[in-house]
Amino acid sequence: MAIRRINHVALLVDDIEQALEFWRDVLGLELAHVEDAPDQGSIVAFLSTGDQEVELVKPTTESSGIARYLERRGPGLHHICLEVDDIRECLAQLKSRGVRLIDPEPIVGTGGKRIAFIHPESTHGVLVELYELTHEESEIRLARARGLADRALAQGQSVAASVLEFLRHLRLDGGRRRRDRAREQPTTEAGEDDV
Amino acid sequence: MAIRRINHVALLVDDIEQALEFWRDVLGLELAHVEDAPDQGSIVAFLSTGDQEVELVKPTTESSGIARYLERRGPGLHHICLEVDDIRECLAQLKSRGVRLIDPEPIVGTGGKRIAFIHPESTHGVLVELYELTHEESEIRLARARGLADRALAQGQSVAASVLEFLRHLRLDGGRRRRDRAREQPTTEAGEDDV
Repeated sequence: MAIRRINHVALLVDDIEQALEFWRDVLGLELAHVEDAPDQGSIVAFLSTGDQEVELVKPTTESSGIARYLERRGPGLHHICLEVDDIRECLAQLKSRGVRLIDPEPIVGTGGKRIAFIHPESTHGVLVELYELTHEESEIRLARARGLADRALAQGQSVAASVLEFLRHLRLDGGRRRRDRAREQPTTEAGEDDV
Repeated sequence: MAIRRINHVALLVDDIEQALEFWRDVLGLELAHVEDAPDQGSIVAFLSTGDQEVELVKPTTESSGIARYLERRGPGLHHICLEVDDIRECLAQLKSRGVRLIDPEPIVGTGGKRIAFIHPESTHGVLVELYELTHEESEIRLARARGLADRALAQGQSVAASVLEFLRHLRLDGGRRRRDRAREQPTTEAGEDDV
């Protein structure tokens, strides 16, 4: 089983703007992207912490699992996401070890990622997301961000400013190249990195 | 505020050996080090995930905050640790922003790290540890691991095997060199044979 790294840590919040006041404004983390995920009943904001991200998740419906979790346990740490080389192979290995999977087959998560969740029952209480980077990810992420911007502008939601800020700075690889460039040379566009 | 990266994500467990059966044996994460932290009322095990770690924390007393937290909420995600360049400067900035700090001054954590915790009240429900790498860290980590090995052997605890395995593979940089070596020789399932 080839676990490459922690991709992100997800925090469940009841107010993304308020949470950003700490995670972006006080801690100074860069807001990498904001996405609407209507099929998952949530809006998510990703903040860069070097090569990983902190994900803020806010439920947008009252009936979803995360909405009930938020109501029961309050805001806080929700899940950890591990990047793997081959998610299908991982899931097959986990199944063969008797691990309880929420998603026996990969599903498409926010940003077009190929993901699957492992049930906390098999991990000692921790919801674990597995994630494999896909080529379609950057395109789907862009479309979702645009959709959210349209909706936010139409509804006058305060998150619009964040989305527009994101769109202004958009890079198709989700911000990583931008971070690399900021670290090295401000003029050269780095090639595909090691993800 | 210079946040460098997610250093580790900590999981509260009621049985380290059982938790290792998933996190080490099933996921294949390398057990980097096991430490006794009597001043914090816990035993901790760190597993490598690339350049970050997953920390398993098991309370060793019934009266500590983590023991009460475990009893109240069950095992699961406990805190996220962010590495910073200068922890004193960070704490000063957080104080000036009105952030509630559990540790207004840095304390010495497991492995000799200079750390401080931010209160969940100021972070939207998440216990956040700040961490600055110190030069003394590797030496203190070694001494603590030896102490735990002695105690485990004397008491016949099952964790002794893990500690001894760690000591056999000890690297003063916390295992990074070993991981780099594994990356340079990408034979299949190198991680599984490693642990």
